[in-house]
Amino acid sequence: MPKQFTEAEVIERIEDMRRRRPRFTDTQITMSHGSGGKASRQLVEGLIVPLLDNPALACLGDAARVQVEGATLALTTDSFVVHPLAFPGGSIGELAVNGTVNDLAAAGARPISLAAALILEEGLDAEVLRGELEAMAAAAQQAGVPVVTGDTKVVERGKADGLYITTTGVGLVASDVALAPELVQPGDKVLVSGTVGEHGMAIMLARGQVDLDADIRSDTAPLWPLAEALLATCGADLHCMRDATRGGVATVLNEIVLTCQLGAVVIEDKVPLRPEVVGACELLGIDPLYVANEGKLVAFVAPDRADEALEALRAHPTGAAAAIIGEVAEEPAGRVLGRTGFGGHRMIDMLVGDPLPRIC
Amino acid sequence: MPKQFTEAEVIERIEDMRRRRPRFTDTQITMSHGSGGKASRQLVEGLIVPLLDNPALACLGDAARVQVEGATLALTTDSFVVHPLAFPGGSIGELAVNGTVNDLAAAGARPISLAAALILEEGLDAEVLRGELEAMAAAAQQAGVPVVTGDTKVVERGKADGLYITTTGVGLVASDVALAPELVQPGDKVLVSGTVGEHGMAIMLARGQVDLDADIRSDTAPLWPLAEALLATCGADLHCMRDATRGGVATVLNEIVLTCQLGAVVIEDKVPLRPEVVGACELLGIDPLYVANEGKLVAFVAPDRADEALEALRAHPTGAAAAIIGEVAEEPAGRVLGRTGFGGHRMIDMLVGDPLPRIC
Repeated sequence: MPKQFTEAEVIERIEDMRRRRPRFTDTQITMSHGSGGKASRQLVEGLIVPLLDNPALACLGDAARVQVEGATLALTTDSFVVHPLAFPGGSIGELAVNGTVNDLAAAGARPISLAAALILEEGLDAEVLRGELEAMAAAAQQAGVPVVTGDTKVVERGKADGLYITTTGVGLVASDVALAPELVQPGDKVLVSGTVGEHGMAIMLARGQVDLDADIRSDTAPLWPLAEALLATCGADLHCMRDATRGGVATVLNEIVLTCQLGAVVIEDKVPLRPEVVGACELLGIDPLYVANEGKLVAFVAPDRADEALEALRAHPTGAAAAIIGEVAEEPAGRVLGRTGFGGHRMIDMLVGDPLPRIC
Repeated sequence: MPKQFTEAEVIERIEDMRRRRPRFTDTQITMSHGSGGKASRQLVEGLIVPLLDNPALACLGDAARVQVEGATLALTTDSFVVHPLAFPGGSIGELAVNGTVNDLAAAGARPISLAAALILEEGLDAEVLRGELEAMAAAAQQAGVPVVTGDTKVVERGKADGLYITTTGVGLVASDVALAPELVQPGDKVLVSGTVGEHGMAIMLARGQVDLDADIRSDTAPLWPLAEALLATCGADLHCMRDATRGGVATVLNEIVLTCQLGAVVIEDKVPLRPEVVGACELLGIDPLYVANEGKLVAFVAPDRADEALEALRAHPTGAAAAIIGEVAEEPAGRVLGRTGFGGHRMIDMLVGDPLPRIC
């Protein structure tokens, strides 16, 4: 029988995590603070969260929960600074909508409204801007959520790489939805909604930094339909969801186990991967578990509901390649292990350094 | 008896405004697209709004109204790219909180939650970041609204001028609040909540672009207390409010009269001005009505409630220098006139060009 946490225990765990908060001791910002890995965590949890201290922010989920007039809203914001602006499979405008919609989806929130703030570089080609606005409009329509307000600033030539977009989303959380890392239980199955590593790899190839000719396209897609299907199928047996963007599936798993102080085991040959991604990762010496996705949900589900959850994901085109990739255990607390094809284990740690900045 | 508009008439006016929408024909983005004047309007109304088309966005208020579970929320977003990061009277962190709080306030919405997205430049001094986070925290506490969620991205050295902040706010609009340019009536008095032009002048002096030694400080301040006082005092006789930032009071007045197709007359010697601002503007040949504020509300109030409204503003320290600066008339439709000290009139047009970019 998996352990059930009382509210007091959940609060104690959050307090405990605060005491173990990473320290920020750097004197300057470096690219690795934006990588989504250890340095990002030190910056966010060691500097930003303590200074802006409040309970909603301290939860560090994909979106904050806010109570308004009896309704539970989810609020999330993301700046998109991807370079280049366009890449195989997508562009910054599409990403800026899907990325925010997906943070809401992972929080179990139906997207209601988006706000978009544009920082434009002097000299930006008006047709490029038009194209990205069209991409935003198309993505917003696909996700079924309007962009209701916005802002436009212009900065001098040489700044802002053409266009930065900050998208903020408001969503509505149904009253019976409870999702949190603290609700993850030993025995829970770990599901991923499809093949991993495509977005980050597509960006790396689009930059021309590596001499490799592979047909890898970003997976950018709205995830609310998958999240909605999981919520409907599993109810309270769906314990937590995350959108596996910067830092990839490995980082999401590490963040969850650090919070719930349980362990996770990933059965590595169950991780869905396109052969082109496998090939590119091998050539470049990169682990696809750390590569960013822009349309992949990681879900923690009670073991006896995992097959139904998998079926629900696979019933939707975006989740056709979904898989159960591992499970949660009591030990090793706060750690993620990979079980390799030869029966061995390896530690899947937090990302250190900066293999690929500015991927979203 | 001022004309009352039916809902159908309001919709017709919006439709009519859409037909008269400015066209965007530029091939490149220039600094003037960020000035808040005519070029900004062409970009926003000629390109962005038509592409992201939806009714809430088309209203172009300081914040969008969103209905959720019977409650009316206001949603607003603003990117802050002010250069330099710190200036007399404030800094980007304080501005980023107050600016968004003030957009909510002008929409008649009590601020509920903020989201903050940071774009950091590689090499940013950690102490500068810490100082701006402290400024955000202090401003958020003063305004009584928590920063509940955020995002952090890092861009390469030479980009982002150290730090850009995008702040998004969610507010709650009371069920009896109706504020819109379409509700402005002939005869309405125009109130401003204090002395104008300080923020833009403080930025200009802080840049050292002009050889002038004047003690001018930014007026950055949260405006919800003033907005709340006006709502409580005037009820439905408060017809519209705006936060007079980029483009100053002149731009706000022009935007309102263009929408309601009425005229506004400003009695120029009634506009509250600090002598240092008058002096600096005269020396530099700048009209203070076009200079940005970061803590000034413009309100349109039925004439028989204007004195009470003025009293309500003046009762609060932020509104101590409030004044009635003009009134609304049937003619000239869509135009703002200034009545000068000698009994003459001048046209106060939309701002053209780019006297002072990146002031917020």
